[in-house]
Amino acid sequence: MSHKPDFETMFNPRSVTVIGTSAKTTMSSNGTSFIKYYRELGFSGRIYPIHPTASQILDLPAYPNVGSLPEAADLAIVSVPARVVPQILEECADASIRNIQIFTAGFRETGESEGIVLEKEIERIAKERCLSVIGPNCLGLYVPKAGLAICGKLPKESGPVGFISQSGGMLNEVSRYCKGLGIRFSKAVSIGNATVLDSTDFLEYFADDPETQIIGMYLEGIGDGRKLTKLVGEINPRKPVVVLKGGLTESGARAVASHTGALAGSEAIWDAFFRQTGATRVDSQEELLDMLVAFRFMLPLRGRGLAVLSTGGGLSVSGADTCAREGLETPTLSEPVLRGLREFVPDVGFSIRNPLDVGLVMRNIPLLDRTLKLLGADPRIAGFLVCLMTGMGFYGDQDDPEEDRQYAKFVGEFGRDNAFHKPLAMVLRSPGDEVNEEIRRIRLHADLTNAGVAVFPSLSRAARALRKVVQYHEFLGSLHQ
Amino acid sequence: MSHKPDFETMFNPRSVTVIGTSAKTTMSSNGTSFIKYYRELGFSGRIYPIHPTASQILDLPAYPNVGSLPEAADLAIVSVPARVVPQILEECADASIRNIQIFTAGFRETGESEGIVLEKEIERIAKERCLSVIGPNCLGLYVPKAGLAICGKLPKESGPVGFISQSGGMLNEVSRYCKGLGIRFSKAVSIGNATVLDSTDFLEYFADDPETQIIGMYLEGIGDGRKLTKLVGEINPRKPVVVLKGGLTESGARAVASHTGALAGSEAIWDAFFRQTGATRVDSQEELLDMLVAFRFMLPLRGRGLAVLSTGGGLSVSGADTCAREGLETPTLSEPVLRGLREFVPDVGFSIRNPLDVGLVMRNIPLLDRTLKLLGADPRIAGFLVCLMTGMGFYGDQDDPEEDRQYAKFVGEFGRDNAFHKPLAMVLRSPGDEVNEEIRRIRLHADLTNAGVAVFPSLSRAARALRKVVQYHEFLGSLHQ
Repeated sequence: MSHKPDFETMFNPRSVTVIGTSAKTTMSSNGTSFIKYYRELGFSGRIYPIHPTASQILDLPAYPNVGSLPEAADLAIVSVPARVVPQILEECADASIRNIQIFTAGFRETGESEGIVLEKEIERIAKERCLSVIGPNCLGLYVPKAGLAICGKLPKESGPVGFISQSGGMLNEVSRYCKGLGIRFSKAVSIGNATVLDSTDFLEYFADDPETQIIGMYLEGIGDGRKLTKLVGEINPRKPVVVLKGGLTESGARAVASHTGALAGSEAIWDAFFRQTGATRVDSQEELLDMLVAFRFMLPLRGRGLAVLSTGGGLSVSGADTCAREGLETPTLSEPVLRGLREFVPDVGFSIRNPLDVGLVMRNIPLLDRTLKLLGADPRIAGFLVCLMTGMGFYGDQDDPEEDRQYAKFVGEFGRDNAFHKPLAMVLRSPGDEVNEEIRRIRLHADLTNAGVAVFPSLSRAARALRKVVQYHEFLGSLHQ
Repeated sequence: MSHKPDFETMFNPRSVTVIGTSAKTTMSSNGTSFIKYYRELGFSGRIYPIHPTASQILDLPAYPNVGSLPEAADLAIVSVPARVVPQILEECADASIRNIQIFTAGFRETGESEGIVLEKEIERIAKERCLSVIGPNCLGLYVPKAGLAICGKLPKESGPVGFISQSGGMLNEVSRYCKGLGIRFSKAVSIGNATVLDSTDFLEYFADDPETQIIGMYLEGIGDGRKLTKLVGEINPRKPVVVLKGGLTESGARAVASHTGALAGSEAIWDAFFRQTGATRVDSQEELLDMLVAFRFMLPLRGRGLAVLSTGGGLSVSGADTCAREGLETPTLSEPVLRGLREFVPDVGFSIRNPLDVGLVMRNIPLLDRTLKLLGADPRIAGFLVCLMTGMGFYGDQDDPEEDRQYAKFVGEFGRDNAFHKPLAMVLRSPGDEVNEEIRRIRLHADLTNAGVAVFPSLSRAARALRKVVQYHEFLGSLHQ
């Protein structure tokens, strides 16, 4: 970008024009869908559909072109055939519309010369006429507070996570998953081919945005690698940056080329990026979600020793192995702690070796409180991991919504505010095949995230996330040496 | 074992005596619970509760000891305090009861000399009096056809999987998960401390059991390592053996000691075991379940090239990376295949590069059929992976149970019986937070498993499972060279 984008207006437009609408609304790829999504999310500004002939789109007056609008819209959404896009950009510039997101695909990602030339045109026009262009080949902005949407059924609430995604589908899915995980966004953007506005432009904004405290990124190309590295390196110590980099394998890089036309960059370049910036590297969408949960809900984990509370001896063994494979420890507890536990944990059928096999305390708030306080006092323990499973009796014998809520409240408060300042995370597993149990799991999960608990779907995923949280704090520690 | 156990009687007893019952039935650890579980599962034989004073347990006449039973029960379940167990074994032997499973814990796993001595007593008595003892510290037998249960709510149907678990909790959970995954057991056994009957005894039986075609194991100690290696090496080429070994890390080994009192064995010993036998090694319960699904439902996968059908470009990239990290390939498709696909896949908004981004074919049976047939003809493609996600429109726009069933039927038939003899697997993902979507996912998952489709919960887990299936067939191939 040669000129400074006006992000305040872009993220909170009072008016939006949608160029390329259809009176028929059966296609989800149509500009008209954006109007529906915006309204569903509660966009309260003015909406101006553009259509060559129709006088009305949905219940809104339509205009033949942006030149005939009653005002210069703060944001334009472009969904016209690729070859028309340059012309539309000129018209937007003539009409003083500066912020434009281009949904249209069919540019350099096709690998065809026509698409490549058209994309160069977009770049040239944007530069000459000072346009802030997102895309092309993107879903654009999701800003809950302002009612900007990329699809339907998005959460309306804001939260502390800023997200930059080179893939619209990825942002779409991540938003959908985050809903149930209690993760909410400040601003999120799908940047597609990133021809004009690149990840670094949005990162610069997020760096100083008080609403953004954690940053997630899905990147395919590196763009301006030096700038990206510098920015992430500066931001990450204050606001954890989690990066899913697509295309690090040979076949992944081929897929990147046909998706956003980007150069994926070599593994070595990205290794250096992660080493220098300390950004948290994830290898899959699941891991990305887990890290957002970990950074959002957990107190800092400042050591590798975990107290794991589980049920069943085989799972304790397996839990110890899983933690060890991630470089975490389940230390033998100190004698005073063991003595304390022996007072109320029977010595047959249970085990107070770490991972603890203590079904009887898992859903009993006073016993759980007593157990966690004993464990917290052990200097070898840096954090707590409590593993529950539905339908095995360990959720509490009765399906009592109020009891579940109280339980979530206790766990949330302990995890946020215990005397040891040690973080607590939870594993909530379920075989996932019984409707009544799933209804209960969904409700309990919601109770837990509402209470501010970091919840993971398996011990393996929890252990990996916790290891990466430790690494993040170790990296920060190394900066201060 | 010095004498030959009578497994036919053990797995299909006409009568069971439960030693150590209680008139109060609030404790789940009580022998009385076994009576309930057996009845729930449909055990049709005679049940004889033993109780020192009560004349009736539940609605059954109770007996003061096994000596007063009207017949020698085919199976005894022992749930009395540890110190009484040797005496009970003698009484069983006197009463000609040969098959005994000991639920009671408190033996060598306590690390205390009293427990160690008691366990040695069990071993001595079993040997002297030719008793086939399962346990102690175990849940014993789960045989659906015979109505033998380890807990409540178990599937009543039989299936081709034999399972040996050193942990009762692990078998309990695995059974619970398998329910929804369409996996059913021929016979399963929790062997606990494996003092008398060891994993190898059950393996010998499974080797020739026509009802058992796949074998799953959760092991803590190795027992007779030479025998185990020899047996698994012989069985695995005919009946895939999947082994989750607990306690391979230092902390895992500590947990093993306090769980079943076993010596976990070094990583080197187990590496040699897996190398020599070709058994499939898994590192977690989830992976164990995935491998049972893969071996149960998939045709042999005889190459590393996969055609991955997905939706969304970012997921295609991520899918390519995930496969590559597992050593699988998503090969570029050959020109004739691409030509065929271009006839019905638009070139903008979709991608026919592998992984294919083809939302429009995913739930359209004729288009999916056409796509799979084109892909199947490509010699670089050894198998198909079709990835669906709920709530993103890719399940089909309407929630139509009949449409879902037809879809499952088509996928099942194609996966079982396509002209290329290439396997098909499916990924069924869901954010898991919306009740209506979960109800639909559960139903579709059941339709798919009923239709014989291998379903995995994420692309990462599917890729790992498929890689291990390839490795299994590569190992078998190496045997024939």
